[in-house]
Amino acid sequence: MIKLNCDMGESFAAWTMGDDSAVMPHIDMANIACGFHAGGPAIMAQTINLALEHDVTIGAHPAYPDLAGFGRRTLHFSAPELKAILHYQIGAMQALCDHAGAELSYVKPHGALYNDMQRDQELFELVCRVMAEVNQNRFAKSQQPALYLLTLAKADNSVQQRIAAEHQVNLCFEAFADRRYEADGSLRSRHYADAVLTERDEILAQAIAFARGQSIAAADGSALTLAPDTLCVHGDNPESIATVVAIRQALFEA
Amino acid sequence: MIKLNCDMGESFAAWTMGDDSAVMPHIDMANIACGFHAGGPAIMAQTINLALEHDVTIGAHPAYPDLAGFGRRTLHFSAPELKAILHYQIGAMQALCDHAGAELSYVKPHGALYNDMQRDQELFELVCRVMAEVNQNRFAKSQQPALYLLTLAKADNSVQQRIAAEHQVNLCFEAFADRRYEADGSLRSRHYADAVLTERDEILAQAIAFARGQSIAAADGSALTLAPDTLCVHGDNPESIATVVAIRQALFEA
Amino acid sequence: MIKLNCDMGESFAAWTMGDDSAVMPHIDMANIACGFHAGGPAIMAQTINLALEHDVTIGAHPAYPDLAGFGRRTLHFSAPELKAILHYQIGAMQALCDHAGAELSYVKPHGALYNDMQRDQELFELVCRVMAEVNQNRFAKSQQPALYLLTLAKADNSVQQRIAAEHQVNLCFEAFADRRYEADGSLRSRHYADAVLTERDEILAQAIAFARGQSIAAADGSALTLAPDTLCVHGDNPESIATVVAIRQALFEA
Amino acid sequence: MIKLNCDMGESFAAWTMGDDSAVMPHIDMANIACGFHAGGPAIMAQTINLALEHDVTIGAHPAYPDLAGFGRRTLHFSAPELKAILHYQIGAMQALCDHAGAELSYVKPHGALYNDMQRDQELFELVCRVMAEVNQNRFAKSQQPALYLLTLAKADNSVQQRIAAEHQVNLCFEAFADRRYEADGSLRSRHYADAVLTERDEILAQAIAFARGQSIAAADGSALTLAPDTLCVHGDNPESIATVVAIRQALFEA
Repeated sequence: MIKLNCDMGESFAAWTMGDDSAVMPHIDMANIACGFHAGGPAIMAQTINLALEHDVTIGAHPAYPDLAGFGRRTLHFSAPELKAILHYQIGAMQALCDHAGAELSYVKPHGALYNDMQRDQELFELVCRVMAEVNQNRFAKSQQPALYLLTLAKADNSVQQRIAAEHQVNLCFEAFADRRYEADGSLRSRHYADAVLTERDEILAQAIAFARGQSIAAADGSALTLAPDTLCVHGDNPESIATVVAIRQALFEA
Repeated sequence: MIKLNCDMGESFAAWTMGDDSAVMPHIDMANIACGFHAGGPAIMAQTINLALEHDVTIGAHPAYPDLAGFGRRTLHFSAPELKAILHYQIGAMQALCDHAGAELSYVKPHGALYNDMQRDQELFELVCRVMAEVNQNRFAKSQQPALYLLTLAKADNSVQQRIAAEHQVNLCFEAFADRRYEADGSLRSRHYADAVLTERDEILAQAIAFARGQSIAAADGSALTLAPDTLCVHGDNPESIATVVAIRQALFEA
Repeated sequence: MIKLNCDMGESFAAWTMGDDSAVMPHIDMANIACGFHAGGPAIMAQTINLALEHDVTIGAHPAYPDLAGFGRRTLHFSAPELKAILHYQIGAMQALCDHAGAELSYVKPHGALYNDMQRDQELFELVCRVMAEVNQNRFAKSQQPALYLLTLAKADNSVQQRIAAEHQVNLCFEAFADRRYEADGSLRSRHYADAVLTERDEILAQAIAFARGQSIAAADGSALTLAPDTLCVHGDNPESIATVVAIRQALFEA
Repeated sequence: MIKLNCDMGESFAAWTMGDDSAVMPHIDMANIACGFHAGGPAIMAQTINLALEHDVTIGAHPAYPDLAGFGRRTLHFSAPELKAILHYQIGAMQALCDHAGAELSYVKPHGALYNDMQRDQELFELVCRVMAEVNQNRFAKSQQPALYLLTLAKADNSVQQRIAAEHQVNLCFEAFADRRYEADGSLRSRHYADAVLTERDEILAQAIAFARGQSIAAADGSALTLAPDTLCVHGDNPESIATVVAIRQALFEA
């Protein structure tokens, strides 16, 4: 069955974001913040334990260093700087997984970093190179399985797949049940009023279409077929969590 | 020969601290800040490369999360929080060492965390437990050598040695060539005017005494014998770097 | 009628805390965070506008500089440092009030700073001295009314009153409808299970007693009479906001 | 005589930047950081006192909130957000000047904010509007003289002057003795190797030309005449401070 992934561990200091313990039982993959856009050591440890409890696969969710902007602002770094930023966060997450006896399985870049790497092939390649370095090290040291990279499913994933293959990085593609798509499979900009689906029936229908490999209607009405491995869901508030539960149920019945 | 260790990588963003490239050729062990009191991913990567270049042993220098206080303020955390804080920093440093093809060899807690663990046996044990977890993981995964813990040499190290032994953590003891000692081997508080030795001859004499296993005169005039494995030196400014060079030369000739 | 004051503007970046727009209609005095433990320029401006809309008196809520600890940790500063920290925050709040055409009326220190000044007379005096400086400047420049200081009502307020009088600072005393008190009028430590009143009837009864100048039962059963000018209420969640509405109604009917 | 202005108070926490006490005696105007790109309450208070001691005019040096990027990165804010950010910083600086018995005289935006407002007329107008609000308030409350805005002298300042005039904001124009100019009076990009003048003779000649209202040679060799009110100098290191002293002397003799 198509998996559900969700951003987790995005509280910070005295501030809570989302209801992780309510949504964790309903998802398959937890993208856990690494302290650069949200979270921090103690929250990471708690979230890893919560994922373990519910047998949820754990991913690192690294970001540009930008708490004030929640990692949603594009910040420019040199390639060596950005590589260090990624190794730092993945390494910290790996250490906390080791501490908890948990497995780290994948990496999903967050926010502006995620969006930037969809547009910018050099950046996508840099992320792949970092993952290849991590994977080589995991293998050389201990034959651990390679981390895979969670990225956006488009109508044509061939460029991403070629770059990833050059670095022997496996990709996992995600789609959004609650977002409108353009004909090329990119997400419709939030500047448009219809960028986000708000009717639950529409969201469930889109989720089921993705799960069955069926086409959905893009913003221009054309048929768009994506082949996602996972759907990204949201645990921000009671309503979005109810939607997660409904998606899960719909997928189960589909 | 007794080794020289020095805090490194303590610049932050646009602010430079110390002259790492000037002092690195003259030391044996680099205590590299992990981003919580100073430093950050890019600075860590640069400092690791600089250490590699000069064949200097690399240690993680984790701290309380306190950039504004440079890690010099005691901050209270629960045991699970503090363990997460330490695993996070050591893991991030390990990842950047892996990235650079460097070996991480030891951990030296920084500032208030270092001072607090000298006084507080529970805290010392918590640090040892974290290191034991890291070491078990290193060994289980890849038979890597265990990290050792760099801590303060006192007149009587038996308590620290017992706790460390319970966790199978090796200790490395450091002394300060430029600090006045109390009779029990603790550092004389900086509240006293004579806490820091300022005459280079006096500093060199104390360094040589430590290196030869000879006694020094404590603040009360009594003879104090420490058995340090390493001397902590400082690369803050041209004068302190000249002192490092002089200590190195004196030890070589001693 | 006894006034209700509430901490406001304590969201930060992407993180929301409390529901300020739900509670603002029901309070008289808004203690607005100044960016050092929570909040920030844009949140301050929004909260000031919200207070203006509901004709709520505005106070500055300065804190130790400690976002990670939400201002709840005691941090040590020299007297000149702490004075600068307070002037900075009060001045920033004053500027944003001026920008909005709002009046700044009082100062209520936050968290650890508030608690520390209850115990430490030197600190209480330092706060009064800062306020005296602010007030002299307000008067000299523009005959603006003096800011008053919001602090904790105790059984015996004479020490605080003497210090404040020396600096010609007016005090405004607050009590807590939902906290258990010790016989001397200090708040019962949160280490005790009964430190916080949870039954709404009990909270309302305590609120009414304060409003009528009647005694309440302290933790040891003794009768305690405080004479607060205002009650501190909380807008953290729907339940606490419902309590605020109920207190308001009870006071109105009392 | 043409005045010298210099960025001051740009240390942060344990990190020192520049040698403020060495350069302060040689300048006329101190652009003091407000805590958003550098500095902080205590450093601001010290720097204000140092300026007072040397009878140096004090300006607020507000920035985008970006310690990690030293205010050198363009960050996007809505107009109300940016207005709040500016009022906050100017207000905090005003309060610390009041505390010290010092006069705040002008505002010079820092880094990316300064550069952005040279290119973006809407942003330049927003800054002017904030200053007009501050000035109206200063006047209404206390007949204090208006703050003026320090900005870049170009070959043609008419657009800036028109916008500023609409808001009754006085401008003060600065030039750089050590920067190469384009023919239109903009600063030559640092991407070019010759962007910064390094020969002291050349710097002094350019300073004297500015002071005398004479033309300088732009990057393309054309004659460029600016009419700056002040030259921006740097106190970062002993060499740049020696240059400041030499400029001062050259201007005195000119």
